[in-house]
Amino acid sequence: MGRPSAKERKPYNIDALVDIAVRVFLRRGYDGASLDQVAAAAGIAKASIYYHVAGKEALLKLGVGRALAALFAVLDEPEARAGGALARLRHVVRRTVEITVARRPEVALLLRVRGNTETERWVLEQRRRFDRLIAAIVAEAQASGDLRRDIDAALATRLLFGMLNSLTEWYRPEGGMGAGEIADAAIKIAFEGLH
Amino acid sequence: MGRPSAKERKPYNIDALVDIAVRVFLRRGYDGASLDQVAAAAGIAKASIYYHVAGKEALLKLGVGRALAALFAVLDEPEARAGGALARLRHVVRRTVEITVARRPEVALLLRVRGNTETERWVLEQRRRFDRLIAAIVAEAQASGDLRRDIDAALATRLLFGMLNSLTEWYRPEGGMGAGEIADAAIKIAFEGLH
Repeated sequence: MGRPSAKERKPYNIDALVDIAVRVFLRRGYDGASLDQVAAAAGIAKASIYYHVAGKEALLKLGVGRALAALFAVLDEPEARAGGALARLRHVVRRTVEITVARRPEVALLLRVRGNTETERWVLEQRRRFDRLIAAIVAEAQASGDLRRDIDAALATRLLFGMLNSLTEWYRPEGGMGAGEIADAAIKIAFEGLH
Repeated sequence: MGRPSAKERKPYNIDALVDIAVRVFLRRGYDGASLDQVAAAAGIAKASIYYHVAGKEALLKLGVGRALAALFAVLDEPEARAGGALARLRHVVRRTVEITVARRPEVALLLRVRGNTETERWVLEQRRRFDRLIAAIVAEAQASGDLRRDIDAALATRLLFGMLNSLTEWYRPEGGMGAGEIADAAIKIAFEGLH
């Protein structure tokens, strides 16, 4: 009943709290993680979390929302809106690698969402919407003769983005490889092949 | 203290129990899942689980072990042991797709292991061992001039298997696509490119 501690008077800013929540969700799995664990990792009282957000779902939405906002923003960039479908696709591939490297935890969390809660189902719908937009560019590039047509556009999109998404599993910034080198390699493999 | 029920006298066979445990681990995340949830999903008493295994870790090892055994067995197949490195790599790629389709839950679980427990760390070590064996084939194919050398072998391996591993996230048997079609597409993209 005494005066609140400095910590409680001046809680974490929301961005730092989301950073920590994303890490805890990744380490424990979203379902397995608790607000108690997020509070412990942040070094604040659980009540302080409620000062910022309604609960665990809201933290997930804020964390995954960073990745979704960055990925959808790519589709509004000039290089993704004008020009041939192949050039636009290459741009989206390169920017997806850059965003995945820059926002690895958030993108990893985005890809691990399972759909057990309302927020998770909303996330899955956003992922499907993004996939459809990319598949449309792939289909356009196939129709214009820029990409081979003997692979279904949706299948090609899934394999291509599966390759890019795998970065969330193995990329380590301390490995010394930059987003540029990985993007170059991914573009070479995807469009020219390893052969 | 009465006679054990029929269920308890004749518990699930271990294979069926592992099937169910793998599904529960995938749905809830391994960390988040409990033996109580596995028992509930199996419709047996938790005590019956201990009739078969020491606990959750043992169920994880048995489930993931199916995927690991199948994947390592590929490397012992004649087509993966004799012939040029490129042909061996193509064989491994095709068989990896087949195994991922046939054992999707187990491979998905294998890829989601995080390393919080001793068994999980053992699994990660097996994954690294598999990756090294594949990267050695890629490097051999580069050295023999069968694969382009302007992409680091380890990076190429990660991107290639990232593409294949993504099947665990999006493949649905009811989609009508077979392992053969997916393997063909993956081999075309990986070796010839989309262009």
